[in-house]
Amino acid sequence: MVIAEWDKQNNNFIRFLSSVTDEQLLKEIAPGKNTGIYLVGHLIAISDAMLPLLGFGEKLFPDLGNVFITNPDKSGLQMPSVAELKEQLKTVNAELSSHIQSTSPEDWLKRHMAVSPEDFSSEPHRNKLNVIINRTNHMSYHLGQLILL
Amino acid sequence: MVIAEWDKQNNNFIRFLSSVTDEQLLKEIAPGKNTGIYLVGHLIAISDAMLPLLGFGEKLFPDLGNVFITNPDKSGLQMPSVAELKEQLKTVNAELSSHIQSTSPEDWLKRHMAVSPEDFSSEPHRNKLNVIINRTNHMSYHLGQLILL
Repeated sequence: MVIAEWDKQNNNFIRFLSSVTDEQLLKEIAPGKNTGIYLVGHLIAISDAMLPLLGFGEKLFPDLGNVFITNPDKSGLQMPSVAELKEQLKTVNAELSSHIQSTSPEDWLKRHMAVSPEDFSSEPHRNKLNVIINRTNHMSYHLGQLILL
Repeated sequence: MVIAEWDKQNNNFIRFLSSVTDEQLLKEIAPGKNTGIYLVGHLIAISDAMLPLLGFGEKLFPDLGNVFITNPDKSGLQMPSVAELKEQLKTVNAELSSHIQSTSPEDWLKRHMAVSPEDFSSEPHRNKLNVIINRTNHMSYHLGQLILL
């Protein structure tokens, strides 16, 4: 059910991206707030960062984090084009999806990579499945904003 | 983990409500979009409707559904005041929370009340826990919008 909800919100994101023009994405979601393209890049950067967090491998596009996570919108940093971002999302999702499908129920309950074995022994909810729960809600949060475009 | 995420987003909602003025809530989240008070009422109406959906009892404020779910914002229907909505949220959350705490792991995997026993036998994911997963993401979605106020 947790994975199905992740897939659902991720599909909502993909559907949104195919319904919106590049020009719309360059606009702010509300006056003075983040632009659509920043939020799109932010969601892709967060998905990419799930790969190491879940122990699935290295980030595929490590440069995204600096532009779309560490720094805010309108930082002056060069952003990829919408077309490049869409390609990167496809690549990240394919990689994530193949690992998600081959993760066993027991492995979902193992620690994620940002918690130490010591801390995990007393906080067993800090596992890989919980990362999916959290990141799904994070995506829903920003989808609620993107839809305003 | 699913319940903890529900509690987290619900607490984000409560914290948001205590940080915002009534005047801010009367504004639109973006030009031409829903007002804050409509989204607040909508989230409370959805939480109230979780009571019968989860088999926890009747809705406490059945009139909310007409104003905040069936009808869109600016329908001309009379809305409760912000103070009334905050009281209703407190009441709904207390009722939901007491039932959530006394629901056993096995009961979470039983059907919710909007699926028939026949359909549930072939679709066992349509259970009470899945309602929480779905409604948590729904809340995150609208919190992403409310924060724009």
